[in-house]
Amino acid sequence: MKTLSITSHGGIATVTINNPPVNVINIDLINEINAFVLSLKDDRDTKVVVFKSLHETFFLAHLDLNVINGTQGGQAASIEFSHMIMNIKAMKQVSVALVDGVARGGGDEFVMACDLSYATENAAFAQPEIHVNIPTGGQGAVQYARRMGKNKALQALLLGNDFTAQQAEKLNIITQFVPKAEMNAFLEMTLGIISSLEIRDIVMYKEIIAASITDETAGAELELRYFLERAKEEKTAMIISTFLKHGGQTEREAKDMQGIFMDTAAELSK
Amino acid sequence: MKTLSITSHGGIATVTINNPPVNVINIDLINEINAFVLSLKDDRDTKVVVFKSLHETFFLAHLDLNVINGTQGGQAASIEFSHMIMNIKAMKQVSVALVDGVARGGGDEFVMACDLSYATENAAFAQPEIHVNIPTGGQGAVQYARRMGKNKALQALLLGNDFTAQQAEKLNIITQFVPKAEMNAFLEMTLGIISSLEIRDIVMYKEIIAASITDETAGAELELRYFLERAKEEKTAMIISTFLKHGGQTEREAKDMQGIFMDTAAELSK
Amino acid sequence: MKTLSITSHGGIATVTINNPPVNVINIDLINEINAFVLSLKDDRDTKVVVFKSLHETFFLAHLDLNVINGTQGGQAASIEFSHMIMNIKAMKQVSVALVDGVARGGGDEFVMACDLSYATENAAFAQPEIHVNIPTGGQGAVQYARRMGKNKALQALLLGNDFTAQQAEKLNIITQFVPKAEMNAFLEMTLGIISSLEIRDIVMYKEIIAASITDETAGAELELRYFLERAKEEKTAMIISTFLKHGGQTEREAKDMQGIFMDTAAELSK
Repeated sequence: MKTLSITSHGGIATVTINNPPVNVINIDLINEINAFVLSLKDDRDTKVVVFKSLHETFFLAHLDLNVINGTQGGQAASIEFSHMIMNIKAMKQVSVALVDGVARGGGDEFVMACDLSYATENAAFAQPEIHVNIPTGGQGAVQYARRMGKNKALQALLLGNDFTAQQAEKLNIITQFVPKAEMNAFLEMTLGIISSLEIRDIVMYKEIIAASITDETAGAELELRYFLERAKEEKTAMIISTFLKHGGQTEREAKDMQGIFMDTAAELSK
Repeated sequence: MKTLSITSHGGIATVTINNPPVNVINIDLINEINAFVLSLKDDRDTKVVVFKSLHETFFLAHLDLNVINGTQGGQAASIEFSHMIMNIKAMKQVSVALVDGVARGGGDEFVMACDLSYATENAAFAQPEIHVNIPTGGQGAVQYARRMGKNKALQALLLGNDFTAQQAEKLNIITQFVPKAEMNAFLEMTLGIISSLEIRDIVMYKEIIAASITDETAGAELELRYFLERAKEEKTAMIISTFLKHGGQTEREAKDMQGIFMDTAAELSK
Repeated sequence: MKTLSITSHGGIATVTINNPPVNVINIDLINEINAFVLSLKDDRDTKVVVFKSLHETFFLAHLDLNVINGTQGGQAASIEFSHMIMNIKAMKQVSVALVDGVARGGGDEFVMACDLSYATENAAFAQPEIHVNIPTGGQGAVQYARRMGKNKALQALLLGNDFTAQQAEKLNIITQFVPKAEMNAFLEMTLGIISSLEIRDIVMYKEIIAASITDETAGAELELRYFLERAKEEKTAMIISTFLKHGGQTEREAKDMQGIFMDTAAELSK
């Protein structure tokens, strides 16, 4: 691979993007991300995929402007880019964008395609496409509309202005602003918890969430069906009896729920 | 009733939950809440139902872990719990959760089933079910998805972390954070206004809201139909003429709309 | 026209509403706004329409209470009012409410019918209709439900309380709070950018946004179709080549994206 370097540890794969000079999303990067994402389809050991950039100031600049044209190659590359967005959205694993720089256009769309996104004081998000005579092409307008509502979305798409991480969190462009100095500790804690789950847990919740957003009643039915099935499992019985032994359903829950979970996990891992 | 004590005054019923040791949602509590909620079906005098807890640190701990299993009794209790959530959501009256303690799992779902929810600095909200191998079972995931969007919902459901009342307000888990010292005055003012309405006013607005969330155009049509019908009523004519007499449609509206409403109500109550 | 004075400059039409004593929305105002809005249907030169009030304390007080009754004239006027709301929502141009005063009832609905709305420290927003025995009639309840969610909407509609501009921004009633002292500079910058676009750009984004809110997949398909078409245009090729010449896809983008856009526009306008 020319643009990605990938490491994996404890259920967490880290994809570092390096496509000089400014991490433009060109066809090489698109192809490599598509190949990697599709390779995870039957991977039950990888629970989390973190995307980050090696570049000091850019997360992903935007889609390569050299493919935005009427040539067969340009149109094919643009379609591949839209497939990349769909492939990321369809991942079984929890996808995480770790944004410490500029993410405009296709870069912003990449961030919104991920399940979770954490950004620092160095991040900038924008969809300025209209100023080069095109609309967004990787669901930027779609996501803005659904995340911030018609009015704020229209303003952002017509102006094409940058948003800071704090603004982006309020507008639901990203999950959370995390100061750079706290990012490592934050990720260790957060991704540590998520990677301790089974891949089927992640898939189940993604499925319930998707159903619920389309149809509240259908979501509730799916949720209840999963609940009743999972309640029958031996694993559930074992965790619950251990949890109760360590102070579950007592006053200890009020101030030390985490402690009960830790004691439970410790005993079960013996 | 073993777990509930209920008082009623001026159109406001107050349900105090007391199920020691930590207000777990067990089958007794479920049955008593279901019975009470269903008894209100044709009650036009009760406009508001406030749910609160007698426990100092717990609002509702969560669903009783002893029913989360594969036994016939366990599965039946879990289904009754999901019915309780649906029954609360279907109430004619305005349901209000007054949360001054811990509300995790089914407790958090109970809060979100209510129309309005006010919480203090002592409140904590979470859906930590996945860490005992089950999903939420009372629309917790459904509500998180619809209230905070896919991304923040997935994070909250996989981590299972606690939210404060202030965080919960921002994420639409609750209606509003109210400091404990201000809660009584806040409720007196707010619920006083709501309980002065007719039950059909509450039902009408719940219906328009539900229609609008599913389909904007259908909501607008329903709203206009109600508007044109209500405009014809003698009651409307009487309020409007009195309102105009006391400074409606004049400069007085700018700084003293409440005063005009109070003068109008005073004259009409003669 | 009796209630409107309209000026137009550089693609921006400014509609100043003056309907003494308190800018009530009566049948004259409704008819004049409907006539003006419909006259813009084939106007490709006007990109932005700003609605503001000449009154010092009222943006628009509310719908004329004298038409809220069972007479044929009253019912017809109410229906015309609802058409006005739909006509504003259907505009090709970007509609902007500039709110420096009170906007209750139909006034608040007028604001929410506009694409963008900016309000100052003097603004107040409310839907207090229920206290005169009617629901909202211009999509107030519909918009509250869709913008702030079921729970906060129900509270606001039953209480009928005023919101400040800052509260209204958080609840998505308006696009943005802008201090009065900064409003002129803000509008000059913002509307200057929007009015430099083509009317078809605005229509395209409104269409994608509307499709996306109803159906995420349909929105994404429509967006991609527009993207691929627009990518083929000569105009796109010219902007992109000029943009690349001035530092597009280089480090200059990080801190000076606006500068690249300005240099590009300057060269192209030669």
